[in-house]
Amino acid sequence: MRRPTIRPTLMLSSALVLGSALSALAQMPQDVTHFTLPNGLETVVIQDDRAPVVVQMVWYRIGAADEVPGKSGIAHYLEHLMFKGTDKLAPGELSKTVTANGGSDNAFTSWDYTAYFQRIASDRLPLVMGMEADRMANLKISDDDWMAERQVVLAERAQRVDSDPAALFAEEMNAIVYDNHPYGRPIIGWRNEIADLTRQDAIDWYDTHYSPNEAILVIAGDVTPEEARRLAEENYGPIPAKGEAEPRIRPQEPPKQTARRISMSDPRVAQPRMTRSVLATERNPGDQEQAAALTVLADLLGGSPQTSVLARELMLTGKALWAGASYDGLSLDPTEFTLSLVPPQGTEPAKAEAALDEVIVKFLKDGVDPGDLERVKTRIRATQVYAQDSAHARAYDYGQGLATGLSVEDVNDWPDILAAVTADDVMDAARDVLADGGGVTGWLTPEPPAEPAAKAAPPKSDPEPAKAEVQG
Amino acid sequence: MRRPTIRPTLMLSSALVLGSALSALAQMPQDVTHFTLPNGLETVVIQDDRAPVVVQMVWYRIGAADEVPGKSGIAHYLEHLMFKGTDKLAPGELSKTVTANGGSDNAFTSWDYTAYFQRIASDRLPLVMGMEADRMANLKISDDDWMAERQVVLAERAQRVDSDPAALFAEEMNAIVYDNHPYGRPIIGWRNEIADLTRQDAIDWYDTHYSPNEAILVIAGDVTPEEARRLAEENYGPIPAKGEAEPRIRPQEPPKQTARRISMSDPRVAQPRMTRSVLATERNPGDQEQAAALTVLADLLGGSPQTSVLARELMLTGKALWAGASYDGLSLDPTEFTLSLVPPQGTEPAKAEAALDEVIVKFLKDGVDPGDLERVKTRIRATQVYAQDSAHARAYDYGQGLATGLSVEDVNDWPDILAAVTADDVMDAARDVLADGGGVTGWLTPEPPAEPAAKAAPPKSDPEPAKAEVQG
Repeated sequence: MRRPTIRPTLMLSSALVLGSALSALAQMPQDVTHFTLPNGLETVVIQDDRAPVVVQMVWYRIGAADEVPGKSGIAHYLEHLMFKGTDKLAPGELSKTVTANGGSDNAFTSWDYTAYFQRIASDRLPLVMGMEADRMANLKISDDDWMAERQVVLAERAQRVDSDPAALFAEEMNAIVYDNHPYGRPIIGWRNEIADLTRQDAIDWYDTHYSPNEAILVIAGDVTPEEARRLAEENYGPIPAKGEAEPRIRPQEPPKQTARRISMSDPRVAQPRMTRSVLATERNPGDQEQAAALTVLADLLGGSPQTSVLARELMLTGKALWAGASYDGLSLDPTEFTLSLVPPQGTEPAKAEAALDEVIVKFLKDGVDPGDLERVKTRIRATQVYAQDSAHARAYDYGQGLATGLSVEDVNDWPDILAAVTADDVMDAARDVLADGGGVTGWLTPEPPAEPAAKAAPPKSDPEPAKAEVQG
Repeated sequence: MRRPTIRPTLMLSSALVLGSALSALAQMPQDVTHFTLPNGLETVVIQDDRAPVVVQMVWYRIGAADEVPGKSGIAHYLEHLMFKGTDKLAPGELSKTVTANGGSDNAFTSWDYTAYFQRIASDRLPLVMGMEADRMANLKISDDDWMAERQVVLAERAQRVDSDPAALFAEEMNAIVYDNHPYGRPIIGWRNEIADLTRQDAIDWYDTHYSPNEAILVIAGDVTPEEARRLAEENYGPIPAKGEAEPRIRPQEPPKQTARRISMSDPRVAQPRMTRSVLATERNPGDQEQAAALTVLADLLGGSPQTSVLARELMLTGKALWAGASYDGLSLDPTEFTLSLVPPQGTEPAKAEAALDEVIVKFLKDGVDPGDLERVKTRIRATQVYAQDSAHARAYDYGQGLATGLSVEDVNDWPDILAAVTADDVMDAARDVLADGGGVTGWLTPEPPAEPAAKAAPPKSDPEPAKAEVQG
């Protein structure tokens, strides 16, 4: 998926349609406003006056997968440096001001985007917009700050990744799933490359990418669209775009011919666990059907610890302590469909894996149980309806969707597209991701397995799973 | 290893010392002359008047591992386009002229270099130097040629790689050995990226890298150093350098924590075979001792089908049809140490692999047999002495050495450094590459193995092993 051209139009439309007829696409929800400022800043406003709070999010269409090879970690490092102040803001002042005003703030970096959030009483919206706009245009990276902050990032990597067998394992799984695409690099960066990042690298990154026409502003909460627009124009309007938005051209994956296995053992691992990942289509603008089928498939296989296929066949029969499936289509480029498994105490990993394989073969042969499909689709729809109650969750949907190349319409259409998934769609998707060669199976175990080549890795310390976003 | 600064000095020295005392480094062989033209063209002349022939080689310090991500294959594609002529040479005319004059020519691309050779009667040296210098400065890539040649490269990939299970398997092994370093990309390029290369990509590549200060000229054969120098100055001297030589900055490999296995099955594979690769140090300027120990180790383990450790323990005992070890330290960045194995007919792959593992464990425990070491070192020295008889082989040594960052002195010193390798050095090197986790083991089999996750890949056609150089 490539980022669609930004449409500088103001759209306001009538009724929120959830779960409507198959062919009709959803209209813009009444409480959502979408416009683009003349400098290219795409803005989404979600009005929700049930509580006197507001969320501001700025999403930059730039992330770890846009980095130049050898400079891994620069996207996340710059996210840290974004708290270092401007001519008006002292280092750390933005967060301190938000907290002093009863709010909270956060930031995170993923492969496809870097995002900055504040949640605060709605009468303080002008304050946080002023500060966010200031650091979009006027970031200062002083000679005092950049080396110290690089140490902070290295310490973060040491704590979150290098001392955690599960995170190291996830990092290498990832490297092996992607032969060519930059999704194979860790968001936080490879240690040796983080250590070499310079102030100039950070300044170049900021100067090239932190521009209103590479950003999405989302305002959700107790604010009228007119007021939000006026504030957006006042605060962000004067910031000039830094030239044309950079195209997000990324090396794509070649087809794979080999089945791949990795193994790692570490005495700090409590229980053996398996992850199996294959590449899978992502949500694309105007083309979300296959991603919808994969979303339903993941839920059907592993969405519930009681009624999902893997739960019923493996967990309730004692063949696995845990078995799951996951898929998230919000990705600029093709992403992963993942199965995971924890064998019961005392069961050989290979035996548990064989049981999982049997269930998959049977599922591919028997197809979807219609009752299961109905239950899953109802659950997905219910989750979405509940999510409408959270202005923050809705803001996140639009921000992440737009940052990964979707349009506002695509985000609006998603519930209907999910509702239209059929049993045949699910089985087509299942054959795509479950019947093929080319997947990566990884085992993380306390003890080295008996197999010849699975040699033990040197011990490190303190387990916790890796994350797809690195919080700043 | 980074490329050392080019030393613009003329070195001429006394005696060829082979296998001299341990601490003394070799002097420049009497028949070798080394100088650099004012435009940065480093030149090595090897005088050998036993036959009235001469070899001209131009090595560019640029290869597939210097490509920008998403443009894989550009180095090799440009190598093809280098035969497309100049204002003076029609497309194909260079090769035709060489052949018409009783000579032969060739070109190839590797990760670290792209090289062009001609072998011809020595009185034709001015002719081939004139043509080679002409295409260094004046290549024309016409609108007629570039798309047709891209089709040629795609057809080459189809024939050499896509229709060959062993080549596809080697390509994916490679992708998994390197998580971050561009050695993980195929030299010929990923098919989808070759298909998108443009005339402008080729022109940019040529304009940036085909410059006398990014090249090495090697002249070997029946020519005096004075005459070679005069001809080099006359033909290459007038070509201006295109600015500073580009630094070869490459993303390096992070440490690895997991043991990795891949498997692929294809009915066209005659016999199962295993490859196991781990990263290993390369030859570095002024620091070739570890690479020398690895060279001796590979020969000791797998250099002879009768007397090597693997031959004795596996082949002569019927536990393997074939077992080998390989290592080549001529590489700009860290390279691979590889074990390979073909099980006897009717033996389970896993059983053969277990036998190999036992031999390795025993070798690591028992150490080097002094008789073995002496035999191997004598064989290596003999090979080198015989190689001195081939002006072409010596030209290749200097060209490849200089193109991968070594100095002429490093190339000269290599035989002495090999001769000085001790049993302790070999065992230190063996522990480095054989005792560690992090290796990649791959099985290519006719039938899918019984293991759960090794799924079959779709059949293709016509096996032949992959190569580390792509010939043009």
